[in-house]
Amino acid sequence: MKSFQEHYPDEYAICYGCGRLNEHGLNIKSYWEDDEGVCRFKPEPFHTGGHNFVYGGLIASLMDCHGAATASAEKYRQDGLVYGEEMFTRFVTASLHVDYLAPVPIDSTMVLRAKVDEIKGRKSVVAMTLYAEDKACAKGKMVAIQIPEDFLDR
Amino acid sequence: MKSFQEHYPDEYAICYGCGRLNEHGLNIKSYWEDDEGVCRFKPEPFHTGGHNFVYGGLIASLMDCHGAATASAEKYRQDGLVYGEEMFTRFVTASLHVDYLAPVPIDSTMVLRAKVDEIKGRKSVVAMTLYAEDKACAKGKMVAIQIPEDFLDR
Repeated sequence: MKSFQEHYPDEYAICYGCGRLNEHGLNIKSYWEDDEGVCRFKPEPFHTGGHNFVYGGLIASLMDCHGAATASAEKYRQDGLVYGEEMFTRFVTASLHVDYLAPVPIDSTMVLRAKVDEIKGRKSVVAMTLYAEDKACAKGKMVAIQIPEDFLDR
Repeated sequence: MKSFQEHYPDEYAICYGCGRLNEHGLNIKSYWEDDEGVCRFKPEPFHTGGHNFVYGGLIASLMDCHGAATASAEKYRQDGLVYGEEMFTRFVTASLHVDYLAPVPIDSTMVLRAKVDEIKGRKSVVAMTLYAEDKACAKGKMVAIQIPEDFLDR
């Protein structure tokens, strides 16, 4: 099964966070699990913020790419469209709020779960919770905006 | 002149964002300019989010390290202490909110300016604005918490 991001056209697939064409990047991948967008990420040892804990900026980065991807996938789903078969719909982040609840052990695989709370026109609100070892370690809220279809032509 | 982060003791200097001892990291550095904490950062070409724009997760990462460092430096200043001479005071991020106002061109040097709005006990609120080519491209608000002095001994 392809990730949401693997359906992005090449022009959008160079993102440092989730672009399959960015060889220096994080290669973040998102999938449906029932009605949640889910991203799993195993950090490198150097992704530390100190001691044995994951860097907060990495957690924000995961939320940035995963939230925007889930907004896109949910829009497809609600419109009855299928990724890869239909016209491309991509979202960008207008705002991101992260609450850091507990340190994430650097040797854990993070599981980030996202749900679209609200769609209003081109705007979607995405709520996210990041788990490590089954404990909720961070919560996120994103406002994502659908990019105009002719953006690349402008 | 040393950056705020270069005064962190070795145990706190391994951060992916700002640790001088993390050879894979971003090496974010913060300095006083009058009463503002200022960080300048030139992204690599691969730090893109798409097209010729900087990745949003990188902007959140800059705010994470720069906000926490400015909270620390401001606490020193308000307490009449001098970095490098006095007992270590380090902050962690409790929450971070980023509003993305405009895309940041990938070939620009970002200038991130921070001010501590409020200190209440161990909690500081930091307001930040990120400029590129003299245009405000993102705004951030962080709640940072002072780490207990005996944290490393626990």
